[in-house]
Amino acid sequence: MSARAEPSSEPTPEPRLGLRERRRNTTRRSLEDAALRLFARDGFDATTVEAIAAEADVSPRTFFRYFAAKDEVLNPDRRARQALLREAVAAAPAGLDDLATAFVALAAVADDLAADREMLLLQRQAVVTSALLRGRTYDVLLSWQHTLTAALADRRGVPHDDLAALSVAAAATGVWQAAIGRWLDAEDTDLGDLLTKACSSLGGRPDGT
Amino acid sequence: MSARAEPSSEPTPEPRLGLRERRRNTTRRSLEDAALRLFARDGFDATTVEAIAAEADVSPRTFFRYFAAKDEVLNPDRRARQALLREAVAAAPAGLDDLATAFVALAAVADDLAADREMLLLQRQAVVTSALLRGRTYDVLLSWQHTLTAALADRRGVPHDDLAALSVAAAATGVWQAAIGRWLDAEDTDLGDLLTKACSSLGGRPDGT
Repeated sequence: MSARAEPSSEPTPEPRLGLRERRRNTTRRSLEDAALRLFARDGFDATTVEAIAAEADVSPRTFFRYFAAKDEVLNPDRRARQALLREAVAAAPAGLDDLATAFVALAAVADDLAADREMLLLQRQAVVTSALLRGRTYDVLLSWQHTLTAALADRRGVPHDDLAALSVAAAATGVWQAAIGRWLDAEDTDLGDLLTKACSSLGGRPDGT
Repeated sequence: MSARAEPSSEPTPEPRLGLRERRRNTTRRSLEDAALRLFARDGFDATTVEAIAAEADVSPRTFFRYFAAKDEVLNPDRRARQALLREAVAAAPAGLDDLATAFVALAAVADDLAADREMLLLQRQAVVTSALLRGRTYDVLLSWQHTLTAALADRRGVPHDDLAALSVAAAATGVWQAAIGRWLDAEDTDLGDLLTKACSSLGGRPDGT
């Protein structure tokens, strides 16, 4: 579950990456982009791996070197972002309660997400077309909730099944997802602002004071 | 979206129901029970409408008089329960803020859910077997969120797209779902207690004081 468990898929490779790794990242990103375009245009269920590979100018065999299945193309940066969330929770100031910690950490991830608005819009368009894909979205949402629960529990040195950590994580990821939806609805909104307002609606102060 | 839009599927029919309506309710409930048993045993994807109908001793044609598709058998009491949620929000004491109102209203639905523990366990077992069914679960979760958002907004006389109402609804339904999961995990827990504790974890007081 470490951020290094899969190659970074950021568009700008870090300088220490070799040629082979950079090429891997480029191919990976091409496949992700091609898949999202086709899912959004033709629907997830009607899009084949063959079509995705053709759109990205590679063979279907190459596709399967990067992804085990069609639905794995979505949320490509999830592992890296969940690692970022864990780090942000661990780095939160000592005085913050769970809810403020969760929002501070999610705001850090939001900064990272903001660059991917176009991709997230395509993703949302694809998700509408397929119940299977909504099932996958649900799994991803739960994985965020589990990641945040465990990070909050670790921060307080309590077991991962801590009810308070679970409750805060479930609330915060629910709010986070709603804020992302609202942010995608209107071009002139700021995801960080939306999160701050949402946090205040729960009676929390995002700075934890 | 009214509670009367579909026949009540409570096991004890109200006295004013005629023989025909009671028979309809019995058939409906038999189909729901049969479907849940088979989904949990054989998996959702492998269970056919024919098998469900046979298990309930009716024809497939009868199945389709009650449900448009296989996945509609799940969450049969949703509409009635969402109506209950709306009523509970509207009836909440005037001094409560959105978060306290949401928890008071969800606690009312929790009382109603508690009788259905066995059915919910079967449902959860079925959902594990199918991404399609998890997609359906996600849709249902969102429909709860929308219902609660609209009810909270109506209570304060603001538009349904109110960000504060959405944030609280997303947080509360997230917590609610996590609490239900925890409640299903262990037989000796009380769903109402779990909700109260979860609400306190968010810094809220369930009585709104």
